Amino acid sequence: MTKITPVILCGGSGTRLWPRSRAIKPKPFLPLVGDYTLFEESLRRASDRSLFDAPFIVTGGKHLEHVESQLGFAPDAQVIVEPAARNTAAAIALAALRLAPDQVMLVCPSDHYIGRVDAFVEAARAAAELAEGGWLVAFGIAATAPETGFGYIRRGEAIAGGGFKVDRFVEKPDLQRAVAFLAEGAYSWNGGIFAFRAGDFLKELGEHRPDILDAVRGAVQGGTQDGHRFHPHAAAFAQVPSESIDYAVMEKTTRAAMVPADMAWSDIGNWDALHDARPKDELGNCVVGRAELVDCREVLVESDGPRVSVIGLEGVIVVVDGDEVLVTSTAGVQKVGKLGGAVNQ
Amino acid sequence: MTKITPVILCGGSGTRLWPRSRAIKPKPFLPLVGDYTLFEESLRRASDRSLFDAPFIVTGGKHLEHVESQLGFAPDAQVIVEPAARNTAAAIALAALRLAPDQVMLVCPSDHYIGRVDAFVEAARAAAELAEGGWLVAFGIAATAPETGFGYIRRGEAIAGGGFKVDRFVEKPDLQRAVAFLAEGAYSWNGGIFAFRAGDFLKELGEHRPDILDAVRGAVQGGTQDGHRFHPHAAAFAQVPSESIDYAVMEKTTRAAMVPADMAWSDIGNWDALHDARPKDELGNCVVGRAELVDCREVLVESDGPRVSVIGLEGVIVVVDGDEVLVTSTAGVQKVGKLGGAVNQ
Repeated sequence: MTKITPVILCGGSGTRLWPRSRAIKPKPFLPLVGDYTLFEESLRRASDRSLFDAPFIVTGGKHLEHVESQLGFAPDAQVIVEPAARNTAAAIALAALRLAPDQVMLVCPSDHYIGRVDAFVEAARAAAELAEGGWLVAFGIAATAPETGFGYIRRGEAIAGGGFKVDRFVEKPDLQRAVAFLAEGAYSWNGGIFAFRAGDFLKELGEHRPDILDAVRGAVQGGTQDGHRFHPHAAAFAQVPSESIDYAVMEKTTRAAMVPADMAWSDIGNWDALHDARPKDELGNCVVGRAELVDCREVLVESDGPRVSVIGLEGVIVVVDGDEVLVTSTAGVQKVGKLGGAVNQ
Repeated sequence: MTKITPVILCGGSGTRLWPRSRAIKPKPFLPLVGDYTLFEESLRRASDRSLFDAPFIVTGGKHLEHVESQLGFAPDAQVIVEPAARNTAAAIALAALRLAPDQVMLVCPSDHYIGRVDAFVEAARAAAELAEGGWLVAFGIAATAPETGFGYIRRGEAIAGGGFKVDRFVEKPDLQRAVAFLAEGAYSWNGGIFAFRAGDFLKELGEHRPDILDAVRGAVQGGTQDGHRFHPHAAAFAQVPSESIDYAVMEKTTRAAMVPADMAWSDIGNWDALHDARPKDELGNCVVGRAELVDCREVLVESDGPRVSVIGLEGVIVVVDGDEVLVTSTAGVQKVGKLGGAVNQ
């Protein structure tokens, strides 16, 4: 098997982990679980150079400083600096056009948490084998709850040698459908992790969205290399239609496959999900920073400085970050992104 | 009637309103309800110079700066600076020895809140009239709940011309007894507000605790006047036994009387009591400082700077003060004084 080239996407900022995650230092670049940032962990997971080639990182100019200061697990990385945000189809096409057609890409978001790295590597290996057979492969992440915040993948027939054809991709369901998906068992979460040969991806993109492919190709042809950085041509890239890989390619191709991945995955999509991913004491409490908890259960405290004293609460999250203090119930985490502080940062 | 001389006691610090109230700036000197501090309000209540004489303030050296910066309602005040804390019997004796024997003193703590000033003034007038008849008069504060944190006064027979003899003083009861007191109706709270002629108080103190009287007298005789400040002799005052007026005099004298006072009184004894005393919106929320509340009821937020965002909570108090953040349930306020931050300030 040829080596796999990780393509790490460092995209938008998000507001759901505000005030810890801010526009100026978003989620991927924070040590949310453990000592390393989510971005660093995404490089670390793919740091076995007998299996993975040097990664490509696709990011925006405003995150470049964070990226380059967190390359300890991949000093050999190439960085593609997007002049503007144009969603995942364009970001992946940028990387694909910088690779040889038969190189296998493993596209990974940089803001997710994966608890079982062994399972990730095993799934990556399986996905790469399918990719070498010409498949466009999605990781099908084992669904453990009726989540309404993710897209789903319905498994089709098995492929000889491993994996499954994709029966269909399903957009974020309502709760009733999510419960039914979980009961049926053929559905897994679409976590945005994909493997394919660069040439296969570009061929499918050219078939279904030639406008995107042509525009990205123009931006790459007019681009400039500067050390490990590649800068696509800004004016050309500004013309690229903004579309996700799911819409542009995966839902349209007849060569979509999936590999099951049961790897303690979380998108750390809100403070409650972060609390879940973290180690806790026997009462379910988790403290980062200085804190004293009295008569508390399932309380998460995170402070960047001030001491936090909490008495008599259950299922509450307290975050202190600079000039902002957030106190929310577990259920209330869904509304964090709508707060004035999060919207107007 | 001769004018009343207010004697304002500015004593200990307390930890139950930590972290807003701190050893270096305790409760009386904070604007906890409204624009003025509790100390300023205690002067303001007695600022009608047709009824009240210039007040005496008894305080410790460490609070002197706060006292003297908050004398706007009593620029004519005399300040007695205690060289050490020796409880209320000694503090009141200091003031009594600086007055003529027939002057009526009105002893008032400086860290309580009184919502109905008219009722206070009316009770003060009634108490002063009894004092001129030789009674030692306690304010009997209308009990509105079975509080276990206060001493109680049981009303005895009526005195011709107004007020009642005290049947007995009762120490802080357990909840069962407090409920029974409230049901019986003859009990009121002892809020530590007393009226008597200086000479009557000193005579009773000399009868029941001559050791205290003699020691305080020695400290006054050796003391020095410095502008509006009077400094008792430090070494002499250090010898004064520490005792409350309740134990030393009120529970022992046969001349104890009480006047009922229904004046929306609160000792602001914890964060929940402070929440009660403050104006609230229609959902029971109260905000001091910058805050955004979403889906909240009965939430108190107080911040000295950072913005506080609260989602989905009921009956919770959030206090941000410098390098300390407190988040507690309403029930948890009883444990605030035991927190590491409060104990080790």
